[in-house]
Amino acid sequence: MLKIARRGAVDPFIVMEVMRDANLRSVQGENILHLEVGQPSTPAPRAVIAAAKAALEADRIGYTDALGLPALRLAISRHYRDFNGVDVPPERIVVTTGSSGGFLLAFLASFDPGDRVALASPGYPCYRNILQTLGIEPVLLPMTADSKFQPTVTALRQYQGRPLDGLIVASPSNPVGAIIPSGTLADLSQLCGAAGIRLISDEIYHGITFGLPAVTAAALDEHAIIVNSFSKYFSMTGWRLGWLVLPPALVQPVERLAQNLFISPPTLSQYAAIGAFEAHDELQQNVRRYAANREILLNGLPEAGFDRLIATDGAFYVYADISALTEDSVAFARRILAEAGIAVTPGVDFDPARGHHFLRFSFAGATEDMIEAVRRLKSWRR
Amino acid sequence: MLKIARRGAVDPFIVMEVMRDANLRSVQGENILHLEVGQPSTPAPRAVIAAAKAALEADRIGYTDALGLPALRLAISRHYRDFNGVDVPPERIVVTTGSSGGFLLAFLASFDPGDRVALASPGYPCYRNILQTLGIEPVLLPMTADSKFQPTVTALRQYQGRPLDGLIVASPSNPVGAIIPSGTLADLSQLCGAAGIRLISDEIYHGITFGLPAVTAAALDEHAIIVNSFSKYFSMTGWRLGWLVLPPALVQPVERLAQNLFISPPTLSQYAAIGAFEAHDELQQNVRRYAANREILLNGLPEAGFDRLIATDGAFYVYADISALTEDSVAFARRILAEAGIAVTPGVDFDPARGHHFLRFSFAGATEDMIEAVRRLKSWRR
Repeated sequence: MLKIARRGAVDPFIVMEVMRDANLRSVQGENILHLEVGQPSTPAPRAVIAAAKAALEADRIGYTDALGLPALRLAISRHYRDFNGVDVPPERIVVTTGSSGGFLLAFLASFDPGDRVALASPGYPCYRNILQTLGIEPVLLPMTADSKFQPTVTALRQYQGRPLDGLIVASPSNPVGAIIPSGTLADLSQLCGAAGIRLISDEIYHGITFGLPAVTAAALDEHAIIVNSFSKYFSMTGWRLGWLVLPPALVQPVERLAQNLFISPPTLSQYAAIGAFEAHDELQQNVRRYAANREILLNGLPEAGFDRLIATDGAFYVYADISALTEDSVAFARRILAEAGIAVTPGVDFDPARGHHFLRFSFAGATEDMIEAVRRLKSWRR
Repeated sequence: MLKIARRGAVDPFIVMEVMRDANLRSVQGENILHLEVGQPSTPAPRAVIAAAKAALEADRIGYTDALGLPALRLAISRHYRDFNGVDVPPERIVVTTGSSGGFLLAFLASFDPGDRVALASPGYPCYRNILQTLGIEPVLLPMTADSKFQPTVTALRQYQGRPLDGLIVASPSNPVGAIIPSGTLADLSQLCGAAGIRLISDEIYHGITFGLPAVTAAALDEHAIIVNSFSKYFSMTGWRLGWLVLPPALVQPVERLAQNLFISPPTLSQYAAIGAFEAHDELQQNVRRYAANREILLNGLPEAGFDRLIATDGAFYVYADISALTEDSVAFARRILAEAGIAVTPGVDFDPARGHHFLRFSFAGATEDMIEAVRRLKSWRR
């Protein structure tokens, strides 16, 4: 028997396993509601699909520059100017294979094995799983509902371990949908700068907010790495396209890593994504749907007994404290799938320590699915 | 100044840098012939483009299973049966984001930091660069023209260092285009099995051969990892899609790594690739073009003074020993680009030690480009 690497023994990304089980049930004819995965039920905007078709007609779909098509990097730069009022030159923008590819490149370029990177728990599970796979130590900051589970300056100041090399923040966050107030983000950035900590700001839910917009760290911190994606606001999950904004000193290391690890991001997706920036009207319609879905869950879930919810500021998730209902969120989620036909994600995906008391509901889907999910949950809990 | 990771200081994939410079010259109006990059000048087959268009109409282009669309895994399994006469169940097949993504997953699942993986030098530069990035030690076996630069049982037996954990073979190889005879591949596999060495067989040039076909290690070694891709034979470089054939024990570790590092491979490319297996007539036409191009270079390059060539068995490369012409292949390649308008790749990309005496010509392009390249080189060398 040949060896299997220890680092192959990474935790699964549980939501993908729930999705696989849910898809299997769907194929077998069950009517499953998908509230597990953070994936818009809408396709890409019409302009994206049109751009993809045009590229299929006109282009060979060959390799691009490792950093991405110049025209797309320029379009992203313009997006920062138009959307955020921030000047980010295209030279600092790197197109990546999803935000997943962006994290891999950002972590490899910034951290060596043994380095320590802090992040809030609960949080996106792949942060800690990718870090561990690369030999970087994830330092989980166990946050509470007081800060909507976002990292705070106090939590970082109280950290007593060996010096940190990085801090990951996500605003709006997953699984909570909480926005870090811009003053707090500035304070965190300042603390990072003073302590030689690289700030990595995951901004993939930017554009999906239900009150104040989220502030980009690109406006605050020239040493920060910004991670973004076409998957969420732009409704392009399966296209596997994202981007980084890098400090100038990191562009060349990331380019070399990208050449070797990816060659280039998917070309058809890159051509298509140029069309995404013409589609704000259509995309704002999606955001209005998410806002309506959010209301349905925030109002309906308490009636089904899920009454300890964090009111989300953005993204498309509701994180529910279910400690009054179960000690085991995995078994509880499995029962909801089997008995109510609703796929939801157990909190252990996001918080290994306390996640057995939490569930995440995604409201990225269709509004009628949210209405039906609330109806089924009420009847299931009766 | 914040730190940049030591592992970010990886070597560039030089061919990508040559391509970038060549593209810049093209944009500025120069008529550049692209003999640097291993990229077919043809687009994807018609059936692939039709399948992509159909998916754009019919599908949301959402995430797929981390291991890929079941229909595509089944189609690849059938391809092994029809093309190689080998039974590879779809459960052992994992769709990846190019062979690049396949290497990353295969290396992470098989090797821990500090492990040693042998490979022939010259070879595909990303092998050693990805290995190094992941903390795995590449053990370069300096091979010679006697074995067409392929690794031999003798070379492995003579290796005196600390025990090896892996061996990468590529047949047909890059940059030489040499096929490992099936008897030698069986001997290498047996040696690996006896010594607890994981065999990784890069088969991305399978289908592009000019005499005997290459044998898949899947027919010989159930512990081997097979890496393949839609980029070369299937003419789909920019679609970023490949696959792995895994030993059963590695499927779950690779699935978990893929969930975290990639989520899933590009969906549109996956739907499109299902069409690739209906396109053998069109693809065989490409292979006939490569065969004609090969003849043009093997006959023409000696007339231009490049008379020390390895006759290629497959892939679309000619590796030329230019030690009689220069001591510095990088400067020499730069001169050919600037003075003859031909992009070629210096051997240092493939062999850090001896590559300053070699150039790689890619004949994946159009036949008229090969004719014109020979004409320009003859006139340039005069």
